[in-house]
Amino acid sequence: MASPEPGGAPDPAGLSINLATLRRQCDLLQAVEVCLRHGITAIAPWRDQVAAVGLPAAVRAVRTHGLRVTGLCRGGMFPAATPEGRRAALEDNLRALEEAVELSADCLVLVVGGLPEGSRDIAGARAMVRDGIAALLEPARAAGMPLAIEPLHPMYAADRACINTLDQALELCVALDPEGAGTRPALGLAVDAYHVWWDPELQPALRRAAGRILAHHICDWLVPTRDLLLDRGMMGDGVIDLAGLRRAVEAAGFHGPQEVEIFSAETWWKRPADEVVATCLDRWRDHCQP
Amino acid sequence: MASPEPGGAPDPAGLSINLATLRRQCDLLQAVEVCLRHGITAIAPWRDQVAAVGLPAAVRAVRTHGLRVTGLCRGGMFPAATPEGRRAALEDNLRALEEAVELSADCLVLVVGGLPEGSRDIAGARAMVRDGIAALLEPARAAGMPLAIEPLHPMYAADRACINTLDQALELCVALDPEGAGTRPALGLAVDAYHVWWDPELQPALRRAAGRILAHHICDWLVPTRDLLLDRGMMGDGVIDLAGLRRAVEAAGFHGPQEVEIFSAETWWKRPADEVVATCLDRWRDHCQP
Repeated sequence: MASPEPGGAPDPAGLSINLATLRRQCDLLQAVEVCLRHGITAIAPWRDQVAAVGLPAAVRAVRTHGLRVTGLCRGGMFPAATPEGRRAALEDNLRALEEAVELSADCLVLVVGGLPEGSRDIAGARAMVRDGIAALLEPARAAGMPLAIEPLHPMYAADRACINTLDQALELCVALDPEGAGTRPALGLAVDAYHVWWDPELQPALRRAAGRILAHHICDWLVPTRDLLLDRGMMGDGVIDLAGLRRAVEAAGFHGPQEVEIFSAETWWKRPADEVVATCLDRWRDHCQP
Repeated sequence: MASPEPGGAPDPAGLSINLATLRRQCDLLQAVEVCLRHGITAIAPWRDQVAAVGLPAAVRAVRTHGLRVTGLCRGGMFPAATPEGRRAALEDNLRALEEAVELSADCLVLVVGGLPEGSRDIAGARAMVRDGIAALLEPARAAGMPLAIEPLHPMYAADRACINTLDQALELCVALDPEGAGTRPALGLAVDAYHVWWDPELQPALRRAAGRILAHHICDWLVPTRDLLLDRGMMGDGVIDLAGLRRAVEAAGFHGPQEVEIFSAETWWKRPADEVVATCLDRWRDHCQP
């Protein structure tokens, strides 16, 4: 089992565990204990994981152990078929914002949502996303909580996120928060290796994204991929040039932790949490250093 | 069961059946009979389907019935880990070219290939694709056979095609065949609804692609999609705005048949071929008219 080592090895403070990675094994409090056993002091919980233990208990764990919360997953899901549906989505996002503030998260991650039920109008869905983010931005700014738009892989365009490239997300940032680029923009990006690795515009888009990156998620793309949602790979088991991506992300000004987020119903969700976290740390050291 | 109707209904000459759609039910010759029963006189066979009945028999069927071959699937698969592998790929493409000429196909469709075994260098794979197409272009030009680059959905970037957007494919066309745009460019695009519908640049990319479109494939994106390869939907069963796409394709100068290509292991490959073709025709009439 890996453990923090003095000497040449990268400092585990550079690694965050997105708790979706341990979703089937642990609740939030147990996951924190596992991470701490491996010297990892940064996490990114999902809202349902926070709710399951209660927000006060989650906040207490973060404060007691001095954890860094690299993001709260997730806000977003803005499009809906009716004005009432869109209003309800906004209200839910405001609650997410409050939770992110309570947890002192680096950002609230936005998975923006796909097509409303029955719709084939992706341009319309994208307009709803823009309107939703615009409505959330002022409360977020007032709360000092950055919003990180996460472009999702195009295979999720219909049902999870109709923002599918870095450039598309960046265009929203520039339109809605024109002066925002900097060390902690009000509106920025979550760059997830799984979602963006294939993009022919990846390198230039990351250069254009300088000063807008709020989070950097990692895992790997398996060949073959057996499920559209739940077959993400451990770093090193797939085809993504994670070290190269990290170099480009750092060149664009982001030096925060890399956050491992692996949805893996058939492999990693079936392994003991300590083994998963130890493997994350080993693979991150071997495959993800710039 | 649908049959060609006089009067208001669209002429079935506007519809082509990619024979992958009937792969499990019919050989090429049987598939031709099915299409003819429904008034459909355009097909697009795959090379293995041609080989299974023999090229001469396939050519005879095409000539006897005056069929239009809207494309031969497929050339491509250019990247390989070794120079020998890349040479072998080129030789295979030259054979594909000859078969396309024999069949009087409108174009040879190129599914360009993904990462070579063990590679994480997608930029390198893309360079191999460019080199491969460059080497194939002169023989294709000499043979009078247009090459249609088919950008594939990004979920196939690793293992099937590292050309994943219309703009990326168009850039190759312009670089390798700068003067080529016109009614029958030497190097152009196959626009497959399944692969491109999500692209935020879809509309402007189609405008930029004017004079480069050689083929237009249709099917639908199902929600949920249960398999990355073999769960394509019948037109009307998913979320793609096929009529809108057709309008944009026509505005870019392509007025050839729409070619139905459905890989559907659990649904359409299990239905009788006549039912599938009748459904294609009905759905094309209802969902795909510009």
